[in-house]
Amino acid sequence: MSHATRRIVLSGIQPTGGVPHLGNYLGALTNWVNMQPAADTPDHRVFYSIVDLHAITMPQDPATLRRNIHDMAVSLLSVGIDPDRAVLFRQSRVHLHSELAWILFCKTPVAWLGRMHQWKTKMEAMQQQSGLQIPANATQAEATLSLLNGTAPEQNAPSSTSSSTSDDTSAATSNLNTSGPCLGLLAYPVLQAADILLYKATEVPIGEDQVQHMNLAVDIARSFNSQYKKDVFTIPRGVYATGTAKKIMSLRVPTAKMAKSDPSDQSRINLDDTPQEIMNKIKRATVDSIRGVTYDAVNRPGVANLLRIHAAVRAVKEPGCVESTPEGCARVFSEYDNAQLKKAVGECIVDGLSDVRDRMVRFKKDKAYVEEVLRKGEEKAIVAAERTMRDVKRAVGFY
Amino acid sequence: MSHATRRIVLSGIQPTGGVPHLGNYLGALTNWVNMQPAADTPDHRVFYSIVDLHAITMPQDPATLRRNIHDMAVSLLSVGIDPDRAVLFRQSRVHLHSELAWILFCKTPVAWLGRMHQWKTKMEAMQQQSGLQIPANATQAEATLSLLNGTAPEQNAPSSTSSSTSDDTSAATSNLNTSGPCLGLLAYPVLQAADILLYKATEVPIGEDQVQHMNLAVDIARSFNSQYKKDVFTIPRGVYATGTAKKIMSLRVPTAKMAKSDPSDQSRINLDDTPQEIMNKIKRATVDSIRGVTYDAVNRPGVANLLRIHAAVRAVKEPGCVESTPEGCARVFSEYDNAQLKKAVGECIVDGLSDVRDRMVRFKKDKAYVEEVLRKGEEKAIVAAERTMRDVKRAVGFY
Repeated sequence: MSHATRRIVLSGIQPTGGVPHLGNYLGALTNWVNMQPAADTPDHRVFYSIVDLHAITMPQDPATLRRNIHDMAVSLLSVGIDPDRAVLFRQSRVHLHSELAWILFCKTPVAWLGRMHQWKTKMEAMQQQSGLQIPANATQAEATLSLLNGTAPEQNAPSSTSSSTSDDTSAATSNLNTSGPCLGLLAYPVLQAADILLYKATEVPIGEDQVQHMNLAVDIARSFNSQYKKDVFTIPRGVYATGTAKKIMSLRVPTAKMAKSDPSDQSRINLDDTPQEIMNKIKRATVDSIRGVTYDAVNRPGVANLLRIHAAVRAVKEPGCVESTPEGCARVFSEYDNAQLKKAVGECIVDGLSDVRDRMVRFKKDKAYVEEVLRKGEEKAIVAAERTMRDVKRAVGFY
Repeated sequence: MSHATRRIVLSGIQPTGGVPHLGNYLGALTNWVNMQPAADTPDHRVFYSIVDLHAITMPQDPATLRRNIHDMAVSLLSVGIDPDRAVLFRQSRVHLHSELAWILFCKTPVAWLGRMHQWKTKMEAMQQQSGLQIPANATQAEATLSLLNGTAPEQNAPSSTSSSTSDDTSAATSNLNTSGPCLGLLAYPVLQAADILLYKATEVPIGEDQVQHMNLAVDIARSFNSQYKKDVFTIPRGVYATGTAKKIMSLRVPTAKMAKSDPSDQSRINLDDTPQEIMNKIKRATVDSIRGVTYDAVNRPGVANLLRIHAAVRAVKEPGCVESTPEGCARVFSEYDNAQLKKAVGECIVDGLSDVRDRMVRFKKDKAYVEEVLRKGEEKAIVAAERTMRDVKRAVGFY
């Protein structure tokens, strides 16, 4: 194959609100930064997408969504996504994602989707909200069945009187939030497949919870190529993030992951925290009263978390140095007391995030620049996507 | 309302193979022709779409689909769709249909779709083909459940080994035709809603089998407008074709509808039949041996069918004339014997279709002209659709 050495990376991130925290940064975002080639070329490209079309599978306030999309672009540029080396774009601005998705909907049996774990999880969460009871031992199909039945047919059925000229809100409208998960929530793994296949991605960095969706994308690609007897799609490969950077825990409860959803802001370092805030949060971090510093993830989770943070931050700037592993850090800091350890870790974070913070201050003020970067990314993404879509449409019989 | 007098018509036709027959022409297509305004203006427009995105919800051979799309354009221009008075376009060339469809998927509860009659019908047909047994008394939801279960999980599940580098075809591929209806078949009523709402259509000519889908489009429009507190979408109205023209029956078995699916070509008049073929088919049409001509749909179905055909064809050219109703024709022909009646009806059809046939011969030879008409239609459709999509994206929070 002529394209055997081609390396195309595709990854997407939801425009969730707020600034990413240190766990996001060390877990996924530095991985994105590191995957960037020296220069953007047709044979080695990375596509990073702010997946706003996925965001709307759950209810969204429009003004908040608009702000979150922009803020996510600011964050990505701040952590080091470089417009000269990566194609950064908003999914909803590249119309070909929806276009390819529809075609793939027509190639994907409904039966494949009812089995997706994430569908089941989200469906159950929404059913709990709406008060619809699903027995805990229900099979996936049974749970989906009660969904398709709805809570009560007369409440959820599209109103048969809706073509009347009455001004009453229809049955549909009045049950907007209680009529169960939307079609988009069932269908979005196929949109994800379209996201990937549109750019003929060879590598897709994913978390463990995405394995099933990744396999679906592979199955759809193979099935399409096989049906049309042509290699229209490149078969993508999931790439799993590895290393300790994945295990960044809460500063308050070091057995739980550092999370945006934690009500205590003290539990996490946000990428726009000031040096003083960082030092304070680390000073208050939960540790133990054992003398000296050792790396013992089981018995000393608080200290271990600080060591992992220190190691991961150092690894970004100087991979391979002695302090780039938690064990190495423990050796260097072995005689430190808690105050000394926290000072060292705090200063390491302040230093490690200073470029990120500077860029964030700059990009937050310069809306026009961020918009311009996105527009240029979207132009590049469209050119690449159109090439694939021409092949797809020709195969299907539209051209 | 400033747009109270605005009249926007939207209708779509599937690119089925072959030339339309007289039943299609008198039932739906002359209706399309008659709905065309004197001139295409922003306040009175008709959008006619060859809905190829809907066609792929069922398996299609690419070369056949490609030919059928073109042939349908030839047929529509031949029956009298006038590019100066109507916007004629291929759905798949206006990317905004898929784009709006995805957004509407995220506003449509899955529960609304499992109840669509057409879904149930097509699902059952496919299940019969695949040999999957659904009890006749199963509820819609139960039937959908067996679908979501699939025939056998180990056959239909996306293969868990698909990210391996093996060249084996995956489980998905090998079960392509036996794994049940695709997601597109469940979702297409929402694409239909997008087709309509994209042009802010006020009127949608529909058949009785489309009432449920029409109500769904209305419900989605109302629900969206209500959620975003803005009249983003115009609430469309279904318009039912009326009159005898709907009841054009088979020439052989006049109690069955004239249909493309009838194996006997003698059962129907095709729009490209020669005058000689038309005269011969009418000569052989099933009638009775009662003396004289009367309009009696129940007891004399063959004669009644010929009278309806005569009346409907005359009504196209000279609406309101005495021969534009079957009863009027019966009075004029009251003394005719079968041979005279058939001669009169045959000549009426030959005359009525002569322009259509001439245009069909011309347009079949002129691929470039037909392509040019479609391209111009698509440009106009895109401009209109983009206006709506800007409002939609702003409402949702993408802009």
